[in-house]
Amino acid sequence: MTVATRPLIVNRDRLVRSIHQLAEVGRLPNGGVCRIAFSTEDLLARQRVQTWMAEAGMTVRVDAAGNIIGRYAGLDPDAPALATGSHIDTVPVGGWYDGCLGVLAGIEVVRVLHENEVRLQHALEVIVFTDEERSVIGSKAMAGQIQEGADYYCRLDGTPIQPCLAKVGGDWDQIHQAQRDRSQIAAFVELHVEQGGVLEHLNRPVGVVTGVVGQYRFAVNIIGRPNHAGTTPMHMRKDALVAASQIVLAVNQLAVETPGDQVATVGFLQVSPNATNTVPGKVDLRIDLRDLSESHLQDLVHQLEQKIQAIATATGTEITLRQTLHIQPTLAANHIMGTIEQVCEELHLEYAHLPSRAGHDAQEIGRIVDMGMIFLPSQQGISHSEEEYTSPEECEQGANVLLKTFLKLDQIYAQREKI
Amino acid sequence: MTVATRPLIVNRDRLVRSIHQLAEVGRLPNGGVCRIAFSTEDLLARQRVQTWMAEAGMTVRVDAAGNIIGRYAGLDPDAPALATGSHIDTVPVGGWYDGCLGVLAGIEVVRVLHENEVRLQHALEVIVFTDEERSVIGSKAMAGQIQEGADYYCRLDGTPIQPCLAKVGGDWDQIHQAQRDRSQIAAFVELHVEQGGVLEHLNRPVGVVTGVVGQYRFAVNIIGRPNHAGTTPMHMRKDALVAASQIVLAVNQLAVETPGDQVATVGFLQVSPNATNTVPGKVDLRIDLRDLSESHLQDLVHQLEQKIQAIATATGTEITLRQTLHIQPTLAANHIMGTIEQVCEELHLEYAHLPSRAGHDAQEIGRIVDMGMIFLPSQQGISHSEEEYTSPEECEQGANVLLKTFLKLDQIYAQREKI
Repeated sequence: MTVATRPLIVNRDRLVRSIHQLAEVGRLPNGGVCRIAFSTEDLLARQRVQTWMAEAGMTVRVDAAGNIIGRYAGLDPDAPALATGSHIDTVPVGGWYDGCLGVLAGIEVVRVLHENEVRLQHALEVIVFTDEERSVIGSKAMAGQIQEGADYYCRLDGTPIQPCLAKVGGDWDQIHQAQRDRSQIAAFVELHVEQGGVLEHLNRPVGVVTGVVGQYRFAVNIIGRPNHAGTTPMHMRKDALVAASQIVLAVNQLAVETPGDQVATVGFLQVSPNATNTVPGKVDLRIDLRDLSESHLQDLVHQLEQKIQAIATATGTEITLRQTLHIQPTLAANHIMGTIEQVCEELHLEYAHLPSRAGHDAQEIGRIVDMGMIFLPSQQGISHSEEEYTSPEECEQGANVLLKTFLKLDQIYAQREKI
Repeated sequence: MTVATRPLIVNRDRLVRSIHQLAEVGRLPNGGVCRIAFSTEDLLARQRVQTWMAEAGMTVRVDAAGNIIGRYAGLDPDAPALATGSHIDTVPVGGWYDGCLGVLAGIEVVRVLHENEVRLQHALEVIVFTDEERSVIGSKAMAGQIQEGADYYCRLDGTPIQPCLAKVGGDWDQIHQAQRDRSQIAAFVELHVEQGGVLEHLNRPVGVVTGVVGQYRFAVNIIGRPNHAGTTPMHMRKDALVAASQIVLAVNQLAVETPGDQVATVGFLQVSPNATNTVPGKVDLRIDLRDLSESHLQDLVHQLEQKIQAIATATGTEITLRQTLHIQPTLAANHIMGTIEQVCEELHLEYAHLPSRAGHDAQEIGRIVDMGMIFLPSQQGISHSEEEYTSPEECEQGANVLLKTFLKLDQIYAQREKI
């Protein structure tokens, strides 16, 4: 790379200004942001980001999935790119940081390189992925994970995906052209707010993400026998809620007592007929299970199936378990984690390792290239809310970690490519 | 009493015919009966029963609570009456036997005495209590348990109680005149279908009821912390549904493992926000607890309060317990139970002891006079349904037990009054 005459460092004020300016697009009266993918607000925000990319010396293109790809050319035209990015669409009441921070920190990194007239060996791409919050269509397309038909991507209001993609410069019929591989991208590093409370709890400014967890969801249906809560002796009952409660505790116990970082939740439970004087005859509940290791997840699912079978027998109920979702985990590359750690040490920033238990674009891109993620603290762990907050100092620290990580990765990959 | 020339026995066909004829009033297309208290159908049925009472040689009056009191005079005009009866109002979709069987078996007993020209020492009263299915106003008034104001007895459709009582010949302003005491009634024996499955399960044609259970109800509110089911590690959760499940199992365990016949149920449970990917932040549930012994109930409530406190501490949730109902139990008189048993033995009918875990008019009347109840099997334990069924043979057996029980109680009380 071209050696800079002074240490490269991001501009906090410029970064924070960009965050504020992007948050103006779709700003809600409560201070939150509504910028649902393909909405007018999303289109405006996409224009603003493309302008910033161009101003930072990047060439900008939009692929068939509507992903915005800003490219800051490298010295070696044959080398694959290094890439960062995230998304700028939001949930209906979103905050300022989820997604946006990753995109804007990426642009800030390029601004720093550009104003210092520094070029890496590798091109550096900043990517805005399309519709992360709902369909994840952008990163899925880039990772070659579009298997479902167009109907699957139909919007909640019934709008087909084709005109949506067309609005942002994409093309459903050519969506497979958005797919990329290792010859085009060597590594992808995403900066994102944690959206949980671990870093704040540990008082660490940086999280080195070990991977994005895989996920299983099950719909459980429990059939007991509805009966009069007065006239039915205990030994004659088939109480679906007693069985359901045993399942809730078994799910919790499995996650709490099994060594590892898995989480397991029963968030939805519905009783029928749900009357004080009737022994519950039916319960529907949903189980959500997440972990970094697919084989560990499969082991947990197996244990859960056995426990549920035993609960059915013990309670005299009929229980069926139906898998409704399965997402494979994606692990961060060890050398990228090591690089982020080294950068943190050089910047005297304490870090913690943690998995990402929410989905991110990096989960999809990590299926095709080396992946890493940098987490920043979310105040009180709050996200998908107007109360989402990460301080200017934390944003600056994170962007500096991202910048220096790319400076190091540029050398690491250049070295690898020589061999 | 006047000695009959042949053994007294009820007329099965006549009894069954009465059951069918009463079930015609308010008959539903599905075969069930809708005869809600104070409805046109209830008024028609009340007329029909009064006619039958008069035909069976009874004098008939209606008290201030609308209770129909048919009185078959005894030989001793100064002795208190022996009494039986039940109700003829139904739930919106009721069966043919709940309540009606007790009234019609009582009338059949008097018919037998009357056609055999038999008089007991004591008058025998057959009572139709007003609105057992909702307010229990008839038997409560007779037992002096009307403490609430008229508003409490307002109907679901908003109709005040005053015109309702007036329609059936009662008078809200005079309702305290319906109250009776031991000088007027010595003993009350109610024949009723079990509305549960115990007798069928044990294959016994007769149940000797040990009492009508008391009841506590509690509304439980659990406040945890709603959180993302992915990003919140297990040790940082305050899961209201985990706490609720522990309570459901504690309630169940208390009833199953404590020696005794208590029943305890969580029939109602509602989760908030009830979303698969959110750790439950709030749960509302209701506990129903029933037993024959008030002190045992109090002990169970005390244990439950301690367990719930421990669950709150262990799960980091805030749990509040609010009592919403308390009904005192009523025990059957030992000598009435003994009399019913003796009758069963003489009639070669196997019997079982069991508590009534549903409310009955006998629960109220038993607060002022000696009380007993005879249960007959409910097919599959079904009640409050068009599928409610007790066979003609079982109805006949039950009515014969009722008849012979009164013949014996007549002697027992005559003996007692002599002393």
